Formats: sequence, C-alpha cells, structure tokens
Amino acid sequence: MAQPILRKELFDLPDDVIYLDGNSLGPLPTAALKRAENVMRREWGVDLIRAWNTADWMTLPQKVGDKIAPLIGAPAGSIATGDTLSIKVFQALGAALKMRPDRRVILSDNGNFPTDLYMAQGLVDALDQDYELKTPAPEDVIDAIDASVAVVMLTHVDYRSGRLHDMSEITKRAHDAGAIVIWDLAHSAGAMPIDLAKCHAEFAVGCTYKYLNGGPGSPAFIYVRPDIADQVKPILAGWMGHTAPFAMDSKYQPASATERLRVGTPPIIQLSVLDTALDIWTDVDLHQVRDASIELSELFIQEVEARCPQLKLASPRNADQRGSQVSFRFEQGYAAMQALVDHGVIGDFRAPNIMRFGFTPMYLNKSDVLKASDVIEDIISNEIWKRPKYQTVSLVT
Amino acid sequence: MAQPILRKELFDLPDDVIYLDGNSLGPLPTAALKRAENVMRREWGVDLIRAWNTADWMTLPQKVGDKIAPLIGAPAGSIATGDTLSIKVFQALGAALKMRPDRRVILSDNGNFPTDLYMAQGLVDALDQDYELKTPAPEDVIDAIDASVAVVMLTHVDYRSGRLHDMSEITKRAHDAGAIVIWDLAHSAGAMPIDLAKCHAEFAVGCTYKYLNGGPGSPAFIYVRPDIADQVKPILAGWMGHTAPFAMDSKYQPASATERLRVGTPPIIQLSVLDTALDIWTDVDLHQVRDASIELSELFIQEVEARCPQLKLASPRNADQRGSQVSFRFEQGYAAMQALVDHGVIGDFRAPNIMRFGFTPMYLNKSDVLKASDVIEDIISNEIWKRPKYQTVSLVT
Repeated sequence: MAQPILRKELFDLPDDVIYLDGNSLGPLPTAALKRAENVMRREWGVDLIRAWNTADWMTLPQKVGDKIAPLIGAPAGSIATGDTLSIKVFQALGAALKMRPDRRVILSDNGNFPTDLYMAQGLVDALDQDYELKTPAPEDVIDAIDASVAVVMLTHVDYRSGRLHDMSEITKRAHDAGAIVIWDLAHSAGAMPIDLAKCHAEFAVGCTYKYLNGGPGSPAFIYVRPDIADQVKPILAGWMGHTAPFAMDSKYQPASATERLRVGTPPIIQLSVLDTALDIWTDVDLHQVRDASIELSELFIQEVEARCPQLKLASPRNADQRGSQVSFRFEQGYAAMQALVDHGVIGDFRAPNIMRFGFTPMYLNKSDVLKASDVIEDIISNEIWKRPKYQTVSLVT
Repeated sequence: MAQPILRKELFDLPDDVIYLDGNSLGPLPTAALKRAENVMRREWGVDLIRAWNTADWMTLPQKVGDKIAPLIGAPAGSIATGDTLSIKVFQALGAALKMRPDRRVILSDNGNFPTDLYMAQGLVDALDQDYELKTPAPEDVIDAIDASVAVVMLTHVDYRSGRLHDMSEITKRAHDAGAIVIWDLAHSAGAMPIDLAKCHAEFAVGCTYKYLNGGPGSPAFIYVRPDIADQVKPILAGWMGHTAPFAMDSKYQPASATERLRVGTPPIIQLSVLDTALDIWTDVDLHQVRDASIELSELFIQEVEARCPQLKLASPRNADQRGSQVSFRFEQGYAAMQALVDHGVIGDFRAPNIMRFGFTPMYLNKSDVLKASDVIEDIISNEIWKRPKYQTVSLVT
C-alpha cells in the first residue's frame, strides 16, 4: 500500500535529516510560525488585555481540546487542555482516589513512564493514608487487578519497548473489580486509532508535543468520561476551573463537566501553536496512519535485523502488540545513537541500552526507512560509534 | 523628577492607546517577536529533538529563574520557573504543611486573589486531615497569627485595592509564632523593590505576565529560601524535579535545592519569550521604578478626584501602603471601563465595582496620565458609559 497520508509539505523539516523521533518531539508545522507571529504581534501586541475576549483566548483551551477529541474517540467537551502531562496525571489520580475512598491500591506497571509513577508517589506521600503504589511487570498487571485496587493507571504504549497494553481488556477487568481506570496516551494519541468512548475508561491524559506536533513543552490534555465529569473533585482547584472565574468568589465552586480540570491562566502562545498544529489532522484517517506506520516499522525491523545482527529487537515482533516506535537493544546504543544523529538519522536513546526509532507516516515514507537503514548499517558494521566524539555528549530527549 | 526609566522603545505598543493594565498583562517587548521566531524556526524546526542540548532548553527554566531573582532580592539558583501561579501556590503550600505537621491552620486574608484560596481549599479537601483555611480581613491578619498557624499565605499587593502588606513585619510575626510564610508576588514583582533575602520568608511565588511582560500565560515562578530548599518535600513530584530525569528510575529522588520544584516538560516557546522579556530589566533600578510609579499614581489620583467626584478612591491614599495600581469604586464601573477601553484608555474592572489602573513607568509618563485623565473625565462627566454598547460586552481580565 502506498502512503496515502504523507503530508510532508505541511512540515518545516530540514532536508538533511531523516527524523525518526516524532514520538519524542514532533516537527514544526509550517503554519504554526505564522500563527505564533499573529498571536504575538496582533493579539498580544495590539489587542493587549482585550485579546482575552477579542481573540477568544478564554475559550482556546476548550477549542484545542475539541480538536484532540476526535483523534482519541472522545466526544466534544470532554477534554481540558493546559499544564503538563505530569500535572494532568496528578489531577486524574487525585480525582480517582476520591471516587474510591475505601480502597488503597494504585496499580501501574514497572514500565510506565517515570513521571507518572513519581506523581503518584508524591500524591501518596502527601495524603499520608496508607496508599500503596504497585508496579508489577506490564504482562502481570491484569492478574494483579482485584477488589483492593482503587485505580489502574497505565501508559497505553510503553515508552521504551513500544509494547501496547490492551485498553479494552484491562479497562473491562478493572471495572469488573470496581476500580477506576486512567490511560496515559502520550505515546499513542495521533499514532493510532483510539476509541475512548468504547473503552469506557474514566480518565485519559496525554501530551501534545509528540505525534500531535504541538512544539516543545506544548500543553497536555485530560479526558474525563462525560457521565462522571460532574462527580470529579478537583484536587488542583484553580480559578480557571471555577464556575465563574471573574466573579472572584472567595469559595471554590467547580465549573460543570471537564471545565473544572482547567487550573491556572492558560499558556496562550503555546496553545495557539498547538491549535494550528492540530489542523493538520483534519480529514486524516487514523486507521490509515496506523497501517502506514506498521508498514514502515515492519520494513525497518526487517532491514535492520538483516544488516545489523548486533542489534536485538526490544519491541514486540507482532505489530499488533506494538505502538508506532521500534526499539533495539545495543550495549553501545548511547554512542551509536550519537553517531546516527551526527549522520542525519535522528532517533533517541533510553537508558540503559535502548535505541528508539519512531515511525510517523505524515512525514516519512519507505525511501526514508531504507536510507536510514543504510546509515545504521554503516554506523554499526563499521563501528563508527567507537569514535571518541560519540562517547561523551549528553543526549537528553 | 523626570522618568529616568522610560524605555517605551523596547515595547511594541499601539499608538492609539494609553495602556494602564500592565498590572494584568504586560505589553509585547519588541525583541520577543524575533526570539519566538528563532526558537520555532531554528531551534525546534532545524535542531528538533537535539535542541534540548544544542539550544539549552533543559537549563532554560533555571536561566529564566536567575533573571527573576535579582528583581525580588533572591540569590541565583533559588527560583524555579514553569507551570502557572496556581500550581506554584499548591507546591509551596503542600511543602509548607509538611514542614509543620502538628499544625492545622492556613492563614490568608479575604482579599487574597481567589485562585490562591481555591488551591488551598482543593489541597485541604484532598488531605482530609482537619486543616482549616482562615481568611480574616487583611488588616486583621497580623493579630490572627498564633501557635496554631502552620502557614501564613498572603499576596503582597491586593489585586483589587492595591493595598500593600508589610512583608517584613508579617513574616517576623509569623516566624515568632513558628509558622511558615508564603508570599504571592504576582502584583509586586517588577513593580517595586522586594528583598526576599532580608524578609526571610520560606517561599514566594509569582506570575510573569504582569509587570514582567512575559506574555499571556507565561510561566510562573517559585522561590524557596536556600537554607531550607533541601528539606522541601515536593507534592508535585514530576520527572523534571528528579535528581536525574533521564536515568528513568522508577523511584522519585528529588533534585537538590530549588530544582526539585520543576515538574513536567517546560513550555519552551513561552519560556523563551519570557527570557527575552526579562532582558529589559538589565540595569533597571527598581527603586527608580517605584518612585516613578508613585509619582504617576499620585498625579492620577489628584486629577481623577479633582475631575470626577463620582469615583471614590478604593486604594490606600498613602502611597507607601499602595502597590503600583490605583483603584476607584464606581457603581457603573463595568460600563465605564468598557467606554474607557473603547476610547483608548485601557484599564480593567474587578467585581463588584472596582475600576483598576496600573502605572508602569517603563512605558508610561506624566503626559499619558494627563491624557488618560482627560478621557476619564469625558466618559464620566458626559455619562458616555450610559450608551447601550457599553452595558453588554464581557470583559475578562
């Protein structure tokens, strides 16, 4: 199948790189530049404080949420945007624990992204009520669900291996046991079809700077299932989540539904850039994105394994159990990734030995994958990674 | 005295307005436009994920904090930036309560900005440990400090009246009673000299989109007194506050000192804009700013009172007890402010009847104040505010 959703012309990508790290930071959508200039020069610069009304800054977080909603199978009005993913995890977890006051176990897995676990640890420490954070191996999570579990909190796609959790199955099992479910969609929103409404989980959170191309540090999102939104007790009771922020009441009264999960003054410049970045998804079929991503991933695995036996596949071999990234283990992966980046193939490295490559068919095709494979073969077979300059630089991604 | 710190050429202000709302949203610093274009086009667009290293995105929050530090009398390294002011209030309060585990009273005042009180209410509800939020009138706070108080949390300058709390006196009294002190500097950072080191408060928080001109929704800041920073237990235990974020440990280990109050991935575009906005303060003497602001405020009060007896001063008459804003009560203040804005004098309105005007000598002089007074006189004396079009539009600021 061809790449029906290749829209490379919408991105401002350098000619001399093959970018296999859209799973960490998506590239710059060309239209975002003009949007940022407009929000700064005209809205902020000319309208000044009036722009909260004239440029609809007040409603921008909801507008952006409504553009994310169809990408993850959520209805309009069910997503609040702002803050960071860490904060959104905290909000979801804080609200979820209040919904199961008699239970004391938070169930996650030991492959979850660290900040999700850290935020849970911070909350547990603060609450000081014998909560326990359990983190079995990903494959053992489902059997660890029992009537002691207040919340199951998992990341859909493992950030290191790309391993996929079965959202429907785990959610059903959790609900059967009376637990609340929080899905972190950081590594799946924009990479594959997600049907939150069907999955019926209570909460989902995610970030927008990976597959959604919102820019470095763009605002995060939180979804609440509409039928329970009005039961949510916000732990972060900010004025933007008040039912009437400008009434300046001294008592917090939560806004209805998802709006109560807004917290402080929204970051208007980054939200505007994200708003424009999301326009790229109009009329995109995520099933097509997923099919094309699998096709690229399969080709990549085949080529790398054939050429570089030193690299061991760290992702599930079965594409149905894998997100939109492919990881290989290589003891010298840190240096090898430095060398790759220096030769124009940008992936990233995750401790202790994971070389990670993301496949984003909006701006990658088979030819890119073959070219990247050539470079990887050169770096590995010729041991180019041994050069001193690839041993020292810090790579933070 | 002339306006020694007038730097109007550094701002991109429209010619047809007199901007008396820099206390709500500072104007666009001209250099910020180029900075935003650079961070998007070159850092994000070209360097992509590499920019976390090549453009020093990882250290940007600290760099920005170090530019704020001298403006509030704080040493380098004592300020973390990011998130919103609401989140920073929550962090400070969460940490402060842990430092006084045997006490149950949070003392604020009933004139505090609502989100500070809301965040306290959300935290108190979540902790479920009989905490009590007390909010006496501002003038009664000092006598309400006793040995039951865990934390005194106040905003330095009242957002409505401009009334100033005496930071030194209240902090001393609180410390004598064994309480922790949190100052919200939202309405004073960049408006007047602040000496946090001398005041000796444990925490301070603030926002950067008012007098610091960081743009709509620019990141907030939190200060921790250096000698206690390593005792702070972060309630929001995000990965960016981990001692080694990219080690991807499963257990949270706080970074040393203020760094542990970073939470999630920083909003790089808005931080960059703020970073450039802060360059305006190089070599500015905040004592001069304060003197000039008082001079402008005094002139404004004198002119408005002489011309518009219908407007009643809501701010302290004594300039030493007043921040950098002047508020007048007027029952038809909402409509009157709409009319003023429509006639090029931009202030704002705060329920129920406060017309608020900010004085920022970086881009305002006496001539502006006199022109604004002319317009106010016209609107009030000729009852222009009675026109139907000024009765309906929503003004959110």
